[in-house]
Amino acid sequence: MNRQQLIDQIKKKKSFLCIGLDVDLDKIPAHLLTFEDPIFEFNKQLIEATHHLAVAYKPNTAFYEAYGLKGWRSLQKTIDYLNSNYPEIFTIADAKRGDIGNTSTRYAKAFFEDMNFDSITVAPYMGIDSVEPFLAFADKFTILLALTSNKGGLDFQILKDENGQTLYEKVLQTSKNWKNSDQLMYVVGATRPEFFQNIRKIVPDHFLLVPGVGAQGGSLQEVCKYGINKDIGLLVNSSRGIIYASSGKDFAEKAKEKALELQKEMEEIIIKR
Amino acid sequence: MNRQQLIDQIKKKKSFLCIGLDVDLDKIPAHLLTFEDPIFEFNKQLIEATHHLAVAYKPNTAFYEAYGLKGWRSLQKTIDYLNSNYPEIFTIADAKRGDIGNTSTRYAKAFFEDMNFDSITVAPYMGIDSVEPFLAFADKFTILLALTSNKGGLDFQILKDENGQTLYEKVLQTSKNWKNSDQLMYVVGATRPEFFQNIRKIVPDHFLLVPGVGAQGGSLQEVCKYGINKDIGLLVNSSRGIIYASSGKDFAEKAKEKALELQKEMEEIIIKR
Repeated sequence: MNRQQLIDQIKKKKSFLCIGLDVDLDKIPAHLLTFEDPIFEFNKQLIEATHHLAVAYKPNTAFYEAYGLKGWRSLQKTIDYLNSNYPEIFTIADAKRGDIGNTSTRYAKAFFEDMNFDSITVAPYMGIDSVEPFLAFADKFTILLALTSNKGGLDFQILKDENGQTLYEKVLQTSKNWKNSDQLMYVVGATRPEFFQNIRKIVPDHFLLVPGVGAQGGSLQEVCKYGINKDIGLLVNSSRGIIYASSGKDFAEKAKEKALELQKEMEEIIIKR
Repeated sequence: MNRQQLIDQIKKKKSFLCIGLDVDLDKIPAHLLTFEDPIFEFNKQLIEATHHLAVAYKPNTAFYEAYGLKGWRSLQKTIDYLNSNYPEIFTIADAKRGDIGNTSTRYAKAFFEDMNFDSITVAPYMGIDSVEPFLAFADKFTILLALTSNKGGLDFQILKDENGQTLYEKVLQTSKNWKNSDQLMYVVGATRPEFFQNIRKIVPDHFLLVPGVGAQGGSLQEVCKYGINKDIGLLVNSSRGIIYASSGKDFAEKAKEKALELQKEMEEIIIKR
């Protein structure tokens, strides 16, 4: 998928909602456990119920890896299902990968080619030659961790250098100069709304993937105040708040209600802009 | 495995060699491709030929993930084979994972419990709550990226803060105070020998996993000069230089020769110390 197709989808659906498919067998409705592949069944029903409200789905690969081969099979079936039925939807492998050159190329092939995700999240610690191999794939996006929503995000990411520049700013600034940097997006946590204004000074045009709205306490209004740009430029993610809205047989219906609430709020923000 | 068992093994074998099992189907001897699982067959023969010379094996998970479900199966078979036949050997999942709390726990369970690796490499960018979940597992080790051997390692890792402390130093210093930090090890590239003296000032006792000897140009002598401590405290990795020493039917024999060269050099260093 290219950038314009993503923007078109956002405008059409009046939504920049991303739904995190972080599937935990201990949390999904009990009646699904009798299915041959409960994880896929859960995802399929969620996607059926919400695909008109969301522009992106983001499975966190850790949840699938935790179930070994069976989990990888569920992930593959989920991405195949999305690509076959809703090719306009932007798919994100939340894998937080990153390794030296030829190894990153392996990861890129696995997620971009074999599994056919549109994008993957990548950690920046190892620098240019750990990220550029991902950027070499046309119409695929690399979503670099910049300022994460968790408590430990502040351990290193806001360290200031001699010139007062923080690490996350340096990551934004430096990566802008890498080859094919127009295929970069950045992870910025919704729990850090005070940083968005500054981030938009460094990367005015790039899309930001924003986790942390909902369960983690981030505010959609606060994020949009400074985060939104002329193309919207945001993918705001909610996981638990939507997919575990109910643990009963009505889970997909309740997920739809929660997604609709967020979509309506986004529609208002888009219109008012 | 606990720390003392690793040290005992090093003393017994007079070796601190780690062999990187970065298996690429394009590079392995052609005659193996007729086997039902060529990757596992390659690993098995390499392990058979070198297990008396090496104290650790380190499959880089990217190489296995690149082959999808089949690759994960080969990885599982490889770790099962090591655990069944050579339980004294230290196993490292070179996965460079790292995510927020409950997600890191998922990764830890997958690698420590389901696959039964002794250790995993983890990226520090997301801070304390992305790493401590790994440290919660007894007799399992978390190997934190500190100063990596690749070119891009210098993009962010040696950034200096207002007090002149670099990012990698801050990672070492900060992580020492995390819960169960005695179960930490650190990745320090052999291509940066000038940094070892300083690193040992911050983490005198921790084990360092040192990639970059051989194909990447690092020197074993230089690394040991300042890196070695009273328990040896080093696991020096070679991947390509050993496992692809020959592309013929004699690949395991040639791998053994290369491993023996390094082991002999290590033995001399251990004796002279």
